Amino acid sequence: MDKILRIDTSAPGGPVARTDALGTYAGLGGRAMTSAVVAREVPPACHPLGADNKLVIAPGLLSGSAAAISGRLSVGCKSPLTGGIKESNSGGQAAQVMGRLGYAAIILEGIPTNDALYKVFINKDGVTIESAADLKGLGNYATVEKLAAQYGEKVAFITIGQAGEMKMSAASVAITDMEQRPTRHAGRGGVGAVMGSKGIKAIIVDDNGCSMRSPADPEKFKAANKAFAEGLRKHPVTGEGLPTFGTNVLTNVVNEAGGYPTNNFKTGQFDGASEISGETQAALENQRGGDGSATHGCHRGCVIRCSGTFYDKNGNYVTKQPEYETVWAHGGNCGISDLDVIALLDRMDDDFGLDTIEMGATIGVAMDAGLAKFGDGQGAIKLLQEVGDGTPLGRILGNGAAVTGQVFGVERVPVVKRQSMPAYDPRAVQGIGVTYATTTMGADHTAGYAVATNLLGVGGSVDALKPEGQVELSRNLQIATAAIDATGMCLFIAFAILDQPDTFNALVDLIGAFTGQPLTADDVTALGKSILTNERNFNTAAGFTAKDDRLPDYFKKEALAPHNVTFGVSDEELDTLYNW
Amino acid sequence: MDKILRIDTSAPGGPVARTDALGTYAGLGGRAMTSAVVAREVPPACHPLGADNKLVIAPGLLSGSAAAISGRLSVGCKSPLTGGIKESNSGGQAAQVMGRLGYAAIILEGIPTNDALYKVFINKDGVTIESAADLKGLGNYATVEKLAAQYGEKVAFITIGQAGEMKMSAASVAITDMEQRPTRHAGRGGVGAVMGSKGIKAIIVDDNGCSMRSPADPEKFKAANKAFAEGLRKHPVTGEGLPTFGTNVLTNVVNEAGGYPTNNFKTGQFDGASEISGETQAALENQRGGDGSATHGCHRGCVIRCSGTFYDKNGNYVTKQPEYETVWAHGGNCGISDLDVIALLDRMDDDFGLDTIEMGATIGVAMDAGLAKFGDGQGAIKLLQEVGDGTPLGRILGNGAAVTGQVFGVERVPVVKRQSMPAYDPRAVQGIGVTYATTTMGADHTAGYAVATNLLGVGGSVDALKPEGQVELSRNLQIATAAIDATGMCLFIAFAILDQPDTFNALVDLIGAFTGQPLTADDVTALGKSILTNERNFNTAAGFTAKDDRLPDYFKKEALAPHNVTFGVSDEELDTLYNW
Repeated sequence: MDKILRIDTSAPGGPVARTDALGTYAGLGGRAMTSAVVAREVPPACHPLGADNKLVIAPGLLSGSAAAISGRLSVGCKSPLTGGIKESNSGGQAAQVMGRLGYAAIILEGIPTNDALYKVFINKDGVTIESAADLKGLGNYATVEKLAAQYGEKVAFITIGQAGEMKMSAASVAITDMEQRPTRHAGRGGVGAVMGSKGIKAIIVDDNGCSMRSPADPEKFKAANKAFAEGLRKHPVTGEGLPTFGTNVLTNVVNEAGGYPTNNFKTGQFDGASEISGETQAALENQRGGDGSATHGCHRGCVIRCSGTFYDKNGNYVTKQPEYETVWAHGGNCGISDLDVIALLDRMDDDFGLDTIEMGATIGVAMDAGLAKFGDGQGAIKLLQEVGDGTPLGRILGNGAAVTGQVFGVERVPVVKRQSMPAYDPRAVQGIGVTYATTTMGADHTAGYAVATNLLGVGGSVDALKPEGQVELSRNLQIATAAIDATGMCLFIAFAILDQPDTFNALVDLIGAFTGQPLTADDVTALGKSILTNERNFNTAAGFTAKDDRLPDYFKKEALAPHNVTFGVSDEELDTLYNW
Repeated sequence: MDKILRIDTSAPGGPVARTDALGTYAGLGGRAMTSAVVAREVPPACHPLGADNKLVIAPGLLSGSAAAISGRLSVGCKSPLTGGIKESNSGGQAAQVMGRLGYAAIILEGIPTNDALYKVFINKDGVTIESAADLKGLGNYATVEKLAAQYGEKVAFITIGQAGEMKMSAASVAITDMEQRPTRHAGRGGVGAVMGSKGIKAIIVDDNGCSMRSPADPEKFKAANKAFAEGLRKHPVTGEGLPTFGTNVLTNVVNEAGGYPTNNFKTGQFDGASEISGETQAALENQRGGDGSATHGCHRGCVIRCSGTFYDKNGNYVTKQPEYETVWAHGGNCGISDLDVIALLDRMDDDFGLDTIEMGATIGVAMDAGLAKFGDGQGAIKLLQEVGDGTPLGRILGNGAAVTGQVFGVERVPVVKRQSMPAYDPRAVQGIGVTYATTTMGADHTAGYAVATNLLGVGGSVDALKPEGQVELSRNLQIATAAIDATGMCLFIAFAILDQPDTFNALVDLIGAFTGQPLTADDVTALGKSILTNERNFNTAAGFTAKDDRLPDYFKKEALAPHNVTFGVSDEELDTLYNW
């Protein structure tokens, strides 16, 4: 990965590609790359859909190598949803392919002078940009089908659906999985809207004729990789829980802990939880045939393999196995306990190119506004269809919960920095509340997954219901996460590296052996801090203050059943998160 | 004015009234009162539509007295549109009546537990609160008609239309004029949404049996009042321009200066300007009969009398004479040059209870989104009707230009702090650009009307097209304006007091004679500064930073025809505005 592809979309005749040397960005991957480019090149006060914003797509530092589970792709920009910096990462095949093609980043720049759509094809011979007029208005599935007919089944696609074309703030960037389906999404913060604003419908990456990236020290690398993968396999979460039931294994866990946000964050337990749990889902999938639940990874090289496929009653493919956050967003948060409805909503989100978390939270707010009743699955499907159709109501919903709340005069809107909260109520899982409040990203569980320590006993134990110790926990996790997000590694490695010192050491060795520059644990921490500092500075320059590092008031005032607990971490404590 | 009426809307059985002594609020009027109460009692981080926000309605310090032109009513709260503090003031009869009833403020507090609507009747005998279920969903005109049938023709009404009930961020609070029509509005910042969130549809104020407020020194007061009124009558703007052509006298002036924002702020001159100018409007009104243009004030005691009545072709009443900003918003900004269309849009805004500036700017953005063509009057009427009807599209538009821009993915949105800019392009009238950027209110021409000095030669002369001197100009005007907004005086007195030292002195004497505490010019300045400081501190605590004191980027990059000028005041200069 020795080059950066820059595509200037403002040229009158259509986008123009140029390849740059890495320069000062050498050695950066994933979130370290996207946040560095955004922080350095994007004016913080610019309009997210304007010429000055850039969309940065970067594989991880180890993507394209033989390193286990290193295929996450980072997508960064100034977010149209939050107005701050954004890095949203995803599985799928594209990161490994980009890594093998040698691109450390693709950067979409400028703004088109008309509304023409383009596709970008990248292979070992270079870059070709062509009209994508025939893809206009298509969902991700139809887009990928058309592209596959042209480019074959061995390439990976990075695409947007209707939501991205309509520049909706909840629009995602889709990345095809191992079955070349658009099921993996850089979902959060409206990165798809920025891709849409640049007039790029699809990026096709083809590593035919490219070889795997070679480590600097092959022997050390091989040994470290083996130890690392073994560590993942032996940890109960990554070796057993996730592969067996998928991420949805969490439904019962979080619900039993009383931290499962139900009916737009009104209570912490959902009566219908058992009907949509990972266990029920796995049984259903096994019963319906196909390849059953949790049988493969979302990208080549995954050793956890927490993914699966969801089939309908008749054994027809619907979508990938819906993730826990999706099942929650379209399930418990909307009072819906029908897995078929949830899977269909997941499929629609993937097709339109929408963040499932934002959409579930938004429909919850819409239900509070009276647009449908909690529990009304068909009502939710109808609302989501409006988004794909781009009706005025759909435009509202497709721009997320904060806009929907304002438009319908609803006070109860579970957002931080205008981004919707995911599947853990911050009152009953106070550590994740600290992450929601303070991360540069807007409410985001992946930015510092304190749920692990609050509820799963991973990385120590901090009482989920009490404020004590949560800031330190979240701080350490946010730093570690930022570093992991730079490697291309799936965040799920955190379980094993937090609990197993030998697995953490194997990771450090793995990176060192790959780059040839031996690493220490302190280097990893320093990397994480430098990423967060870049991001935080960007947000400050964009106008964010400590006042933006807050949960909505009602989390501090309204006690959550069954524990009757409010969010107890004080503003003063929150403001110490970046003191390191 | 020795008491404050507080209405707690959260009581289960319906709102409960309580009368308080003035306490620390003694001596405050208008904006000084509303901003003091909001700054002291409203948590800056609260949700604008939640229980912690308060709607403060305050007559000016001199309202209810014989002081000339002292009938402005201030309405304050945390704004649902900007998220910052808001004071929006209006003419109409209510301020004088409230003053005579002795209420220095009415404060709506709490949040109802259901969606019942109430009306509050206030007369010399006290306060009565009753169900207003029969007014639900009615526009301001129908509301006032029903109320007049019950309360008679001598009372004044403070009401909301459908927009306020729907808690739209562009919703206004309507105040009836001398003809008991709901034509005067505290328009800006969504104050009507806050009234709606409190479940109060109407406040009826009846000063039957009350006497005019007496000055402390009647003789001095009388003499000062006479000199003051004479000063207003002898200044060319308030003695001639405004009475003859109404505020719309500005269309030709601003258009000729190249600062008339046309087609959503794309150029600075409008081809159709002469068709909608004050001169044309006055001729049309005279031709159509009725009382002609500019024949009376918007409230008792006005000596400028810049208002009039607009009749249709057949001589039927349509609306009050549309103000310059309204004619611009629904006219040139949308490419519309038909006064009948503009007057109808004004009538619809008044009836639904909407800010005409916000709605015109919003329709301009909607036109850029392709929802109608620039110049399409019927298209604009259709869009505005959707707002009154509360359709999803109407909900979008009724929440203003910032929401509309986000929902439809439009970059070109002329707002500061999410509030739409009024009728002067900040590139060609750079002083007003400084006011838009820096006032606590969001883009607002009335907060520091630098147009006077930039274009009209009032209060000196500062070149409209250059950045030099604009910050000082805006600073001084913002301070003076805040003080004027505390008195209940119409802002139009500024022309005379800026140009005529004897008129300024008469005003100072007038206030001193009324209160019995002689005033100096320094006291006036100190009052203005203290109001601004209150407001600025609130906004800072709500999370505003210097980054919010900026115009959208394109005003700095895109040159405005015909002068081909960009906004040239640097960020560093803007940041000195509050250095006094």
